[in-house]
Amino acid sequence: MILRDDCAAMDENDELCSLRGEFCFNEREIYLDGNSLGPLCEASSRRVREVVSEEWAKGLVRSWNTAGWMLEPTRLGDKIAPLIGAEPGEVVVADTLTFLLAKLIGGTLALRPDRHVIITDEANFHSDLYIVEAMAQRAGRPMTVKTIERATLDEHLDDDVALVMLTHVDFRTGEMLDMKGITKKAHDSGALMLWDLAHSTGAVPIDVSGCDVDFAAGCTYKYLNAGPGSPGFAYIRRNWQGVIENPLPGWLGHARPFDFERTYEPAEGMQAFVTSSPSIIALASLDGALEVFAQASMSQIRRKSLALTDLFMALVEDRLPGVFEIVTPRAHDKRGSQVALRHDDGYGIIQALIERGVIGDFRDPDICRFGFTPLYLRFVDVYDAVERMVEVFNSAMHLDPRYRVRNPVT
Amino acid sequence: MILRDDCAAMDENDELCSLRGEFCFNEREIYLDGNSLGPLCEASSRRVREVVSEEWAKGLVRSWNTAGWMLEPTRLGDKIAPLIGAEPGEVVVADTLTFLLAKLIGGTLALRPDRHVIITDEANFHSDLYIVEAMAQRAGRPMTVKTIERATLDEHLDDDVALVMLTHVDFRTGEMLDMKGITKKAHDSGALMLWDLAHSTGAVPIDVSGCDVDFAAGCTYKYLNAGPGSPGFAYIRRNWQGVIENPLPGWLGHARPFDFERTYEPAEGMQAFVTSSPSIIALASLDGALEVFAQASMSQIRRKSLALTDLFMALVEDRLPGVFEIVTPRAHDKRGSQVALRHDDGYGIIQALIERGVIGDFRDPDICRFGFTPLYLRFVDVYDAVERMVEVFNSAMHLDPRYRVRNPVT
Repeated sequence: MILRDDCAAMDENDELCSLRGEFCFNEREIYLDGNSLGPLCEASSRRVREVVSEEWAKGLVRSWNTAGWMLEPTRLGDKIAPLIGAEPGEVVVADTLTFLLAKLIGGTLALRPDRHVIITDEANFHSDLYIVEAMAQRAGRPMTVKTIERATLDEHLDDDVALVMLTHVDFRTGEMLDMKGITKKAHDSGALMLWDLAHSTGAVPIDVSGCDVDFAAGCTYKYLNAGPGSPGFAYIRRNWQGVIENPLPGWLGHARPFDFERTYEPAEGMQAFVTSSPSIIALASLDGALEVFAQASMSQIRRKSLALTDLFMALVEDRLPGVFEIVTPRAHDKRGSQVALRHDDGYGIIQALIERGVIGDFRDPDICRFGFTPLYLRFVDVYDAVERMVEVFNSAMHLDPRYRVRNPVT
Repeated sequence: MILRDDCAAMDENDELCSLRGEFCFNEREIYLDGNSLGPLCEASSRRVREVVSEEWAKGLVRSWNTAGWMLEPTRLGDKIAPLIGAEPGEVVVADTLTFLLAKLIGGTLALRPDRHVIITDEANFHSDLYIVEAMAQRAGRPMTVKTIERATLDEHLDDDVALVMLTHVDFRTGEMLDMKGITKKAHDSGALMLWDLAHSTGAVPIDVSGCDVDFAAGCTYKYLNAGPGSPGFAYIRRNWQGVIENPLPGWLGHARPFDFERTYEPAEGMQAFVTSSPSIIALASLDGALEVFAQASMSQIRRKSLALTDLFMALVEDRLPGVFEIVTPRAHDKRGSQVALRHDDGYGIIQALIERGVIGDFRDPDICRFGFTPLYLRFVDVYDAVERMVEVFNSAMHLDPRYRVRNPVT
């Protein structure tokens, strides 16, 4: 039997505990939805103020040079690089995850001109499925998108596969895929590998270099805490830079943007994948959010993440035995930083918890998702969250007729 | 001879003079570059603070619903609609201008499947030229982009033209094209018409409905003052909605985004052209910036804009006779809200002016650009700007060897 005091003791020994102070919270709430939208940290708030009140208000148009705005996409890319095991110059921040996927998919298909198949996962996030289908239709040759059950990948890999595109951590179940093994299989068949890192960046250690990944993209509003709708990032392994072309080019990716040339000529390196001006205010928020990551290593974050999710699953089984199916794999190497619980009344459970100050989210048809972010969550938060879940069941609050109408959050 | 007192008298009679107080300026400077990056207004600053410190920090993920974030792209589109003569439900805010052009071009070409030519203007902004070429290559059939001298449009319009894509106000010269006449010509040949409104939205009255425009897109960081890299907007005339398809679809444009369906089915109306989450902080800044426009009509803005540019050109000819070629057309119906002056030493002139607190910009090879924004510029500012230009020439400051190395601003 795990006691609250045990959790408090874990907090006292937590090497990351001081980082919680960087974030803004309502102290009465427990936030278990950082996997959907990370919270505000003080550094983001400060950087946004600086950019708005100083760089924009006073520097005006000059700040594109004097405040370094022109270089923000690659500078911030270099700040993300160590979080995913990339080298400086291999990551750029721009656009949104979906547009970056569009660019990478379009660019990749041109690198395997004799192949006609893209493989992705039927459980992939739906935007990924829509955009891969759209880019396949515009590849300039017949392409088939095979949306497979990912366990059957081996059966589908052959010499007609141009690209394998998968999401590293499943957005519903929290299952983490074997990046190294799958990338090797794709390469063995002559295909290229594109990983969506939306649910893993900042949550689990990633080693795109060590796993020989060709291309990757991710978002910054989940575990990186950069704010609602903050920009995406793309990774292109060095050897592909200057080889893969940006199929949606714009002036900021031109080798000489201010020469106003009629013909596109890509800039060197990752700058070629910048299309047009990103929101500098949104980038300021990301800049601040990344400062917190400079104070913790991904291995420290991973260690605490696993301890938090282990604790949560143990408490759920202990306090609510047999109530939920724990969908997320128990094996450490097979999960990210969220736990998915299946229950027929999942929607009502999440709504009732939110009303009691425990913020998780619901994913159709029956998944309660709880994200555990080591930068700001305490072990006692996990304890208290499960206690409030017990109260919900004891009072049957989750069966309230109000919850029959769904009002989903992203 | 125009005196400073004459200008001061014009300011006293200016019905828009109170709006200057909404903006943040260094009072020693004269800002004539709102056509590149508009200045910060107090309402933007306030809305950004609210979104960051309240909606994000306290509402967290719930704000997608409770603060209406999900609806921001169409709500803000409806706020822009009256500025371009569109109806509610015909404009959406999302992405960047280049991506919106990509979507509209891709969607349009599918509406004219038997035609093989796109016409655009060799003087168009280079991002427009790059993206139209890129989308033509991915149209699924052979397409030719004809980049013409726009005066020769009539010669090129025939029954093989699918799309005419032009920018309403030329970014270099400030020339304004005849939206109604050109749109009619395009339609008479059976082509569709797409206007880039980057340099006209918020600067000149636009009547997309009255001109029978099919599609348009614009940016919000110039005359709309929404901040560096703020999002773009797209207009789709009602009759094309549900007909034109978004070629770069994403989950937020799905009819039922939270049902996580494997197949894309577009939402109704402009929502179908939203791909993924826009930066909510960037949208907050736009929201504030648009509040200023609620206090002035586009005809008031146009009247003052023409008076400002008339004054500027008159003063330049009076104080610096024969020094510049005035590139911008003098006829009121043929210009936007900027004045372009040609001079071989243009780069040095702009740099010297910036050092004297007059902010304009330079465009290769020899264009000095000055933007005149009626919301915050005074007639005495125009007078003082030209006086400082006279000082630059009198001291030959623009010939300083420092200005031989160019450090361009956007």
